[in-house]
Amino acid sequence: MNSTSSLPTDVTIVEMGARDGLQNEAAVSTEAKIDLINQLSLTGLTHIEAGSFVSPKWVPQMADSKHVLEKISRQPNVIYSALTPNLQGFEQAIQSKVNQVAIFTSSSESFCKKNINCSIAESLKRFVPLIAEAKRYNIPVRGYLSCVADCPYDGATKPEQVAAIAKELFDLGCYEVSLGDTIGTGTPLRIGRMLEAVQRNIPINHLAVHFHDTWGQALANIYQALTMGVSVIDSSVAGLGGCPYAVGASGNVATEDVLYMCQGLGIETGVNLNDMAKAGWMICRILNKQPSSKVSLALR
Amino acid sequence: MNSTSSLPTDVTIVEMGARDGLQNEAAVSTEAKIDLINQLSLTGLTHIEAGSFVSPKWVPQMADSKHVLEKISRQPNVIYSALTPNLQGFEQAIQSKVNQVAIFTSSSESFCKKNINCSIAESLKRFVPLIAEAKRYNIPVRGYLSCVADCPYDGATKPEQVAAIAKELFDLGCYEVSLGDTIGTGTPLRIGRMLEAVQRNIPINHLAVHFHDTWGQALANIYQALTMGVSVIDSSVAGLGGCPYAVGASGNVATEDVLYMCQGLGIETGVNLNDMAKAGWMICRILNKQPSSKVSLALR
Repeated sequence: MNSTSSLPTDVTIVEMGARDGLQNEAAVSTEAKIDLINQLSLTGLTHIEAGSFVSPKWVPQMADSKHVLEKISRQPNVIYSALTPNLQGFEQAIQSKVNQVAIFTSSSESFCKKNINCSIAESLKRFVPLIAEAKRYNIPVRGYLSCVADCPYDGATKPEQVAAIAKELFDLGCYEVSLGDTIGTGTPLRIGRMLEAVQRNIPINHLAVHFHDTWGQALANIYQALTMGVSVIDSSVAGLGGCPYAVGASGNVATEDVLYMCQGLGIETGVNLNDMAKAGWMICRILNKQPSSKVSLALR
Repeated sequence: MNSTSSLPTDVTIVEMGARDGLQNEAAVSTEAKIDLINQLSLTGLTHIEAGSFVSPKWVPQMADSKHVLEKISRQPNVIYSALTPNLQGFEQAIQSKVNQVAIFTSSSESFCKKNINCSIAESLKRFVPLIAEAKRYNIPVRGYLSCVADCPYDGATKPEQVAAIAKELFDLGCYEVSLGDTIGTGTPLRIGRMLEAVQRNIPINHLAVHFHDTWGQALANIYQALTMGVSVIDSSVAGLGGCPYAVGASGNVATEDVLYMCQGLGIETGVNLNDMAKAGWMICRILNKQPSSKVSLALR
């Protein structure tokens, strides 16, 4: 990276801890979730994914999303979103007064099959009525695309494949596509090539990155994405959310670590790092674990 | 980073675990150190820092460096080096048949004072007879420069200050200057600016980076350095060596994490990642701790 590379001046953090994080941790009480979201709401964050309306059979940790969304103290400048796999989930999310919903598919056929039990094409078809309904309610829809670097079953995902499915999500009506390195195996050059392919199909200001730190590469990959102009980053307070494919390993990149890097790069996030670290320590005490954030450990 | 940035095709790893690592961990037996170095010697590494001839009053963990260097099974393609603060240490190192020595100073006056109890200028003067003696023995001298991003006492270090002291080390006769982000607070843009300043004074192929992962930034910073052509990286198996300034926090970047990133970037290191991870688990069992390497945890 030389001085001609351009970093964004501002970055939006989309906070995953209360959803993608807690759905992969030991169950915590509805009260603790509400406390966490309320605390996160006061850090300066503008987007918090607060729950999921996936069948509780599949994701029991999120069965109380309705109650959580009912009870949180909403801040006027914060978007509270929820994951919705289908029309039924969307309707529940609307009843819970979310500001935004998110749908998800994979750029790898095998992962799609094992994760949501249908082909990629079927998953996209399923989103059509959901997005139509979202338009009627004027609810923005975000799209998650998993396995953008590698799939745990199929190995490397071709950048062109990622670009093609990302475009389908965008064309369906997603205002933003969040590109997920689900198993965290990507390294900066491959991430760069993937982003090059995707941005041929979608303007860079409609892309987000969602990187997992399982192999320690998340910040290097985020830095790569920033130098290419990506300005929306998904992360999880205290690195909540382990890795289902490697017990004891890390999952989502920690919000604290992203904030620290952005600060150092002179990028404005609007989020207070110390408040974020406090929220992380609070939920980690409940989970009886240490934050999976080097910045949190160093700050202490 | 775009496709015009140039990464090196090959990178040399200088393994710090047995010295910079273990000097900041609970004491382990001489036998365990020898086992570790022997195991590291078979991973494909070409440079292992094996000990330190600093006064045992200051660094008791390294008091047995002479015995360690006597007893290890040396591999023909591996350089075994030791840290030597002065002529006396250098002579002990020579008696222990090291292939190379390393000297160290700081780019921050306060750190120099507190760490080695003299000014930067005095430290450099002290190296003159050592380097003259090393020339007589035909022993290459490596120079460590600490606090290249920030000093725990003085705050930010100016890139020009780093560049000036680095040049003094180089002009004194160090074949390579290893630039240390001692407290791990650097972020890629600042590291890039520091390297830009230093490489105005010293050709890039005479520079190494020595980054600590205390704030989780080491791999992003190493990636930055690689894109600028740096091809020598100091790292520590299993991330051995905590941070004396933040209890429980990380110190040296883990060799396994560096190897994994290099592999992903298509950069040859000659080092076998699985063998390195095994060496890390071995010494961590003795230290009764987990490796501070995300790659090691994910590999398990």
